[in-house]
Parts: sequence; C-alpha cells; structure tokens
Amino acid sequence: MSSSDALFDRHRGGKLAVASTVPLASREDLSLAYTPGVARVCEAIAADESLADDYTWVSHAVAVVTDGSAVLGLGNLGPRAALPVMEGKAVLFKQFGGVDAVPICLDTQDPDEIVAAVRALAPSFGGINLEDISAPRCFEIERRLDEALDLPVFHDDQHGTAIVVLAALRNAARLVGRKLGELRVVVSGAGAAGVAVTRMLLAAGVDGALTVVCDSRGIIHSGRKDLSGAPVKRELAETTNPDRLTGDIATALQGADVLIGVSGGRIGEPAVAGMAPDAIVFGLANPTPEVDPVVAARHAAVVATGRSDLPNQINNVLAFPGVFRGALAVRATTITEGMKLAAADAIAAVVADALRPDAIVPSPLDPRVAPAVADAVAAAARTDGVCRGQSL
Amino acid sequence: MSSSDALFDRHRGGKLAVASTVPLASREDLSLAYTPGVARVCEAIAADESLADDYTWVSHAVAVVTDGSAVLGLGNLGPRAALPVMEGKAVLFKQFGGVDAVPICLDTQDPDEIVAAVRALAPSFGGINLEDISAPRCFEIERRLDEALDLPVFHDDQHGTAIVVLAALRNAARLVGRKLGELRVVVSGAGAAGVAVTRMLLAAGVDGALTVVCDSRGIIHSGRKDLSGAPVKRELAETTNPDRLTGDIATALQGADVLIGVSGGRIGEPAVAGMAPDAIVFGLANPTPEVDPVVAARHAAVVATGRSDLPNQINNVLAFPGVFRGALAVRATTITEGMKLAAADAIAAVVADALRPDAIVPSPLDPRVAPAVADAVAAAARTDGVCRGQSL
Repeated sequence: MSSSDALFDRHRGGKLAVASTVPLASREDLSLAYTPGVARVCEAIAADESLADDYTWVSHAVAVVTDGSAVLGLGNLGPRAALPVMEGKAVLFKQFGGVDAVPICLDTQDPDEIVAAVRALAPSFGGINLEDISAPRCFEIERRLDEALDLPVFHDDQHGTAIVVLAALRNAARLVGRKLGELRVVVSGAGAAGVAVTRMLLAAGVDGALTVVCDSRGIIHSGRKDLSGAPVKRELAETTNPDRLTGDIATALQGADVLIGVSGGRIGEPAVAGMAPDAIVFGLANPTPEVDPVVAARHAAVVATGRSDLPNQINNVLAFPGVFRGALAVRATTITEGMKLAAADAIAAVVADALRPDAIVPSPLDPRVAPAVADAVAAAARTDGVCRGQSL
Repeated sequence: MSSSDALFDRHRGGKLAVASTVPLASREDLSLAYTPGVARVCEAIAADESLADDYTWVSHAVAVVTDGSAVLGLGNLGPRAALPVMEGKAVLFKQFGGVDAVPICLDTQDPDEIVAAVRALAPSFGGINLEDISAPRCFEIERRLDEALDLPVFHDDQHGTAIVVLAALRNAARLVGRKLGELRVVVSGAGAAGVAVTRMLLAAGVDGALTVVCDSRGIIHSGRKDLSGAPVKRELAETTNPDRLTGDIATALQGADVLIGVSGGRIGEPAVAGMAPDAIVFGLANPTPEVDPVVAARHAAVVATGRSDLPNQINNVLAFPGVFRGALAVRATTITEGMKLAAADAIAAVVADALRPDAIVPSPLDPRVAPAVADAVAAAARTDGVCRGQSL
C-alpha cells in the first residue's frame, strides 16, 4: 500500500460521527428524549430562551464555517473540497477542547450571503469558528457577524495564528533577554494572518514605531498610493512604520530583531543576514517556510516554523480548542482582545519553566495546553464583562 | 426527585456530541487527519467533486432543518425552543438508521431566506430533513429546495407521516379483508400531514372518488370560495370528492370505512358511530387523539394513535431513519414517490406475518424496520434512476 493509499483510506467515509449522549433502550427513554417528553423542555425554552444554554448542546457546540475561498495554502477550492479540512478541524476541537464542532461549508462566496446564512443558522450553535475565508473579505464578514450575533465569532486564520505567534514571540524574547516593546519587528504578509498578527502584537506591547509590515509590493507606508481600496492595509500604514520606510523585505529586515513570515513568499539569505544579532525568525508558510530553516539557523538565535516535522511548530491547534472551550464555559458573547492576549500568555506559560531555543511553544499534542487556555480565556471574559447574564 | 426533574435532567447539556472516527494519538495521526496530509484529499475533491461522497461524511450525514414555526403540536416556538426536538430527532436518526444528523435551527421564518440558507449550507451534508415547518409554507420550501439541490430533501411531517399511515392502512385493510381502492376514506386535516397523507394514499391506489378531506371549515370541495389563496387545497379539491359533498366531518364520515385524523381537532362519538362496519380509525394528534381511543374501539375494527402508551403507535421514526439510510447508501439525488411507497410497503411487511388488530405496525423500537426500509428505498431509487452517477 502506498502512503497515498494510507492517506485516502484514513479519510474514507469522512472523519466525523454524531453520537447520542442519552440512552434509547426503552419506550420510556424514547418518550423522554423525544415526544411527548421533549415538549416540556421546548416550552420551558420558549418561555426563557436562556435555558437553551442548559438544555441543548449549544453550551458545547460550534460551527466551523468556510466558503472554501482560501483552503489551507491551496487557494479557492470551493466548499466541497474544503470539507475534509473542516472535518479535521472538528476532530481537533473534540480531541483537545472537548468541543463538539460541525463543519458548515457554504455554497456561496458573497459576503452578504455568507453573513445571512451564518446569522440564520446561529441558534443551532454556541459559537462560530470562521475558517479559510480569503482576505480582505474575511475582515468584513467577521466584523458583521460579531456585531450581529450574541456569541463568540472567531476567524481562526487570523486570531488563532496571532495568539500562537504572540505566545512564541513572548518566549523567544525571554530567551534572548529582550522586552517586546524594544524589538524591531517585521511582518511579511498582510493577509488574514499578517493583519491579525500585527494588530495583536501591538495590543501586547510591541511598539508600532519599531514595526514594519510588508505585502507583495514591499513595505507598507502611509505614502503608498495603492492602498485606497484596502482599508485594513491603510490601518496598518497608520499604526506602523511612522518613519515611512520604503522598499522591499530586505530593506525592512536591515537591523530588525524579529521576522514573522505569514506570506507564503520566499526570503533569501542575504536579507536574513542583515538582521540584528540574536534575531528571531518565524517562517510559518506550509509546507515551505518563507526562510529555509537551515539558512535561518545561521543568522538567528530562535527559529520557528509551521511544520510538524521541525521543532517549534507554531500551530493554531494550540489556541482554538481552548479559546472556544473557555468562551463557551462562561457563555461569552464575543471574543475580546483581552481573551486572546490571555490565551497567548497561557500557551507561553506552559513551557516557560523549560525554555529552550527549540522549545518556545508546547507540542500540538500537549494535553496541558487547552485546559490552561480555556481557564485563562474564561477568566478574561469575566474580567471584560462579556459573559451572558453576567452582572458587572 | 419529581418526574419533571428527571425529564429536565435527561436533557441537561443537550443530547448530542460529535465524535471523531479517526485516531489522533501521534504527530503522524495529526498530519494525516489535518495538515499537511488533508491537503491531498482536498485537491482530489477539487478535481472531482464526486469524491466528496467517498472522502467526507456527506455519505452518512444529514441536516435536520427547522424554523421553529410548528414545533410538535405546540405551534410557533421559534428556533431556540425547537432545538431539543431536533436533537431528539438526531438521536433517533443515529440509533435506528446509523445516520449522523445535525440540528439546524434557523433564525428566520421567511421562505426565501430559509431556501437561501439551506442551499448555502447544503455542501456540508448528504441530505436535508425538513422538520416542524408550518403549512402552507412547508410545501413551497420543500419544492424549491428539492429543485435546487442534487440531494434528498424530505419534509418529515409530511412524508414520514404519510409513509407510516400508508403502512398502517395497508395492514388494517388486510385485517378487514378489503382492498385500498374500494375503501371510502376521510382525512381530517389539510395541513402538512393531511396533504401528504392524501397525496400518498392516492398514489398507492386509494380512489380519489371515494376520498374526502376536511379542514377546519369542513369538507373540501371544488365549490369552496375560500381556497383561492391555498393552491394545495385547490389541488385536493380537484383530486378528491368529485361528488362535491359538502358539510362537516360528521357528514363526511357517514358510511366511511376509514378516518385518518391529522388535525389536532376533536371528533365526537356520534360522528364516528356513522361509519361503515369494520371501520378503521387513526387518530394521530398527540397527546390527545382526534377520536378518544375507547370511543373509537366501540365503532371500529382497527384503531391506531400516535401515542407510545397505546397499541398501534403510528410514529414517523418507523420511516425517516431507513428512508435516509437507504437514499444515502445509493447516493439518491431526490426522494421519489416510488421510494416512499417502497418504504411504506417495507414497514407493513415487517409485521405482515403476525397481523393483529392491535399490531398493524411494528414497535418504534423494532430493530428490523430501518434496515428493511433502507433496502426497499435504495432498490426503488435504483429503479427510478435517481442515483448520482447511475447509468440507466
């Protein structure tokens, strides 16, 4: 059997099932789980909708929603081809977070229709994980859904990545004895991940005056004429690079302390060689990191990638199961910046006592991570006063 | 503990979970189920969408969709209060049909928006079970979805009820030694169930010239002036009651052989006493049948209800798990009249060797039913040439 056979065999029939959590062995079981008994539960919820949190699965169920427009790094494959990824995501949600996730692959890529469909199905779930929706559409879709819905909405390609990058950067900075606010940071990529990473680093204390973001046309600065149709990039031009540095990624990296690659492009050795001593290089593109890890190791003190076969794997699975588990546990109505920062700190803390340059983040399989993230996220939600029914 | 406590305890946290069907113990498992391995499966489906049937859960997953407009007999409770019913339905789907069903409770009661939402989420599932959507909206919604989608769409309140009623009537007619085509039939109720029951009985050989349908205003006939806005009732006026009988349910029942109550109203003893000898009375309203079963037994040879605590329980669970299991097994693109008739015959056949007036249908817990229905439905789908990829 070839390895391809083994791979496809693993996916045959899909990777998910629905299970009943109540017995159904007798007529009495049937009359409790279904009619006539269930009518009493329905009437109770009709009289007080908050009881749905107690007597339906919304307290532990999320929808994993995609339109298939940006599947992994493969591009716009559509909803049917995206389903194996969403099923895999649901497997991870269950395994690490104890969260029951259902793939919802939408047969439309129109933002208005996506928002309408998700708003329509929202009463069936306790949270919405958006996945593999292309930028810049993803920003508007998430914002509109977060405003419309009284439950957590989380675009994992943005915030899951940003949370784990921040966790990794906190530990990498500790290793080289630096504070976040003094690091010169270059983010390569201004898509969903690049935008969210930049926003989150700034929220965590990285200095916008020391930060530069590059897209495929080079350094983003407020003098660029091509940003008029890209409000999110205009925002980056305002919050970073006040010196209006211009040029390409190599220019940006001259003397920089940190490179965070979330572009899928390639960055050559000469550019990386121009970084400051004790540099930190994260190349997160899969399967080919922006900087060859061997090359990066020649010039950097800490190297991380997204690859499972290399040390320091920066993988969203460290974040999303615990984020939703924590948010659902306290019936959070949204995911605040504070909850995301708390998640990053919790991930970093799991390995803080045993920091090594090749162990700045926990293994994706580390069972300590999701419970720690969940607790931190739940506490932050309470602090931020976003729990349903919470009195402040 | 009161029985109410026990009931609510049974529903605490809901009744469903999602389970993984693949191992996730090692980094290799992770790389097969999720990135990077899953990318190969996505690319294969992008190149040939029919492979989604093989490598995703759509081959065994259905959405149970409601707008909460007609929850059980309770009325318009909305989507959140409907969720316990849909979860219960999913439990039954799994237990009896091995079908993985996901509740989708929609936060809209606008038919256009319902159709748009279900069309949007359809790639995530292999079939759509519509549930507890009020008449007459349910007819249009089902028709539009069936036309738009290349998968089975089945409004259970209509067709599940109709299938089991036909199965029960076949066996009741055998018991009293009559043929379907010679029975004088009265259907009380012209909502979702009444319309579907009438259509199905006519398709099975009941004679429209011997059939009368009543709604809350009495006998439906082609002279009624109040049917202009009700196309489905106009259809009934064309296909039944050619003699233009007018009047109330008691008039309709004079000399009738069969009463099928799917109205939720009450029918008194004098009306039932007017039926022909060896009458058959089905009163399916829950918890209070249209005809008191004790009263019915004084005038009828065979009595059936929808109640689990009485003999001859006519319950949709005899139909829907097997219907979807069979339709999904052969990748049916729709549910034909032939598939529904085959399901009814299969249900009737399970108890045909041991017919008794108090055992005209199998118990809802009889494990022989769903496999028999599934086989019959699959065979009928092949006969009707509605299987995806089938060459005729």
